[in-house]
Amino acid sequence: MTVPFKQLQSEFKRVLLSLNFTEEKAELCATIFAENSRDGVYTHVLNRFPTFVEFIKEGLVKPGADPAIENAFGSLEQWNGNLGAGILNARFCMARAIELAETNGIGCVALKNTNHWMRAGAYGWQAAEAGLIGICFTNTIANLPPWGGLDPRLGNNPLVIAIPRKDGHVVLDMAISQYSVGKLNLYKNQNKELPLPGGYDDNGNLSTDAAEILESKRLLPVGFWKGSGLSLVLDLLATVLSQGNSTAKITQSEKESGVSQVFICMKPDNSEHTSQLIEEIISYTKTSRPEHESGSVFYPGENTLRTREKSLKDGVWVDEAIWEKVLGI
Amino acid sequence: MTVPFKQLQSEFKRVLLSLNFTEEKAELCATIFAENSRDGVYTHVLNRFPTFVEFIKEGLVKPGADPAIENAFGSLEQWNGNLGAGILNARFCMARAIELAETNGIGCVALKNTNHWMRAGAYGWQAAEAGLIGICFTNTIANLPPWGGLDPRLGNNPLVIAIPRKDGHVVLDMAISQYSVGKLNLYKNQNKELPLPGGYDDNGNLSTDAAEILESKRLLPVGFWKGSGLSLVLDLLATVLSQGNSTAKITQSEKESGVSQVFICMKPDNSEHTSQLIEEIISYTKTSRPEHESGSVFYPGENTLRTREKSLKDGVWVDEAIWEKVLGI
Repeated sequence: MTVPFKQLQSEFKRVLLSLNFTEEKAELCATIFAENSRDGVYTHVLNRFPTFVEFIKEGLVKPGADPAIENAFGSLEQWNGNLGAGILNARFCMARAIELAETNGIGCVALKNTNHWMRAGAYGWQAAEAGLIGICFTNTIANLPPWGGLDPRLGNNPLVIAIPRKDGHVVLDMAISQYSVGKLNLYKNQNKELPLPGGYDDNGNLSTDAAEILESKRLLPVGFWKGSGLSLVLDLLATVLSQGNSTAKITQSEKESGVSQVFICMKPDNSEHTSQLIEEIISYTKTSRPEHESGSVFYPGENTLRTREKSLKDGVWVDEAIWEKVLGI
Repeated sequence: MTVPFKQLQSEFKRVLLSLNFTEEKAELCATIFAENSRDGVYTHVLNRFPTFVEFIKEGLVKPGADPAIENAFGSLEQWNGNLGAGILNARFCMARAIELAETNGIGCVALKNTNHWMRAGAYGWQAAEAGLIGICFTNTIANLPPWGGLDPRLGNNPLVIAIPRKDGHVVLDMAISQYSVGKLNLYKNQNKELPLPGGYDDNGNLSTDAAEILESKRLLPVGFWKGSGLSLVLDLLATVLSQGNSTAKITQSEKESGVSQVFICMKPDNSEHTSQLIEEIISYTKTSRPEHESGSVFYPGENTLRTREKSLKDGVWVDEAIWEKVLGI
């Protein structure tokens, strides 16, 4: 079913106000939850909202908390999220990284003791909307085996790289697992085969069977050994720069709370010449002959704009069962 | 065959001096070429040296050129490589990014009009040796089809992330193609099957046959659509930040010259506590049960140290035919 954007936003806000968020915090948090749904990132929005509410009730997410600065060295800052809502902390820290880059060309904010930021790409869009290049990443609970190993010891540590562009920002939003657990469950429940290998079965063979992969817990990192290494260094960067919890520590606590994140901003020369360089790259990429007759080549973020437009026109798609759950909170 | 490190270095230097490099430039360039061989990155070192010499003779690499600053905004700088040797330009720009980070916590140098930097990881090691976090990447000539396309329009744009560590730095050095063309040729010539899919055959099926992949020119980006997006945004970042050539432009010129690169440095808190955080992450990762009985889990850069030690003890492995070629220059 679909729900108008405004209704989605106001329902989220109603729930957040009942959980002791201030008017201002409830408004911002509800807006970003609604925007994430509007942009089609269903696995990380509405589906996550009931869990978010649970985390607040368990005291893992603190509605009243504000981020506080712990250390600063030039344009590199460490902030403590004080276990506040991940969305609000991340939004704040990207805004701070934007400020640093506006005055110094480049800025970096490392954030510890924060919570799940929901849709990673949201903070890339935030930087790009401000006309800046944004790079951010987070660590997570362990959900991927390192290359050569059987047990999950790495997070899927989403990485975002955003470049501002006049006719639609380019925003890469990629987790290190080839498919998220949410996506695998979707394929499993629909009894559908994955289009490409997403992990291993219990015999150590590459598999397109989501149920087998969920069973073995051997989800594939992007690029096999390469993604495994990338996930590890992103965790190292987030932990070392923020002096916060690593994937190891987060996993020990069993609940994904108190994670570490990094926000980097750079101020590009937003001239007509830069626009031309960007268009040259995108249009060249699109000259590749499509693999399938009706197919085409997209840049990261291109489909988001299309979904956004459709959502605002026809309403935002929501899973009926979860929506009912939200209405009942 | 193996050659002592010192001999490798002095042969490279002899050739470079004969090509009008200054004493200082020949020494540094030869040392880095030799170090790359010492560390076992064979496909990007000795093999590349004759091509490097050719590029100099064709005027694509200019031995006398020095990088010059074009623009600066705080800790974000643009430099022009003036088509100098890629190794020397990259080394210089990472050193400059280190200086910027030493005074301001974080620094970024974007470099245009440079040449192939040979082994990408070398500049990550450079930052880590100085006690800093280093991130760098380059664009390249188009050698990968974008996701959904058939013709190569993206570079394999190597990405490096290095974290300083007391008992051996962590250095991720990954190109966006699952296997390099050099590696595919190696498998093809040895008539060996790739351990994991590396691209597509002419019928559009995932393949472990290097010859088929080289034939179709459809090399696989890491993580399928994800690597395709990552390659595109790295090219956008390098081009926009340096205002230099994109993969599109480089490819038009048919020779891989005048590429764009980015060097980012951050100064971590190099305390005992940071060391503990790093060891916690690495040791946790290594507790994953190995997939194969005698196997184990490595961090990026771990095997490099092993190869380095062996090379310094037993001599550096070189391909005899290419070595003879170098001796004859």
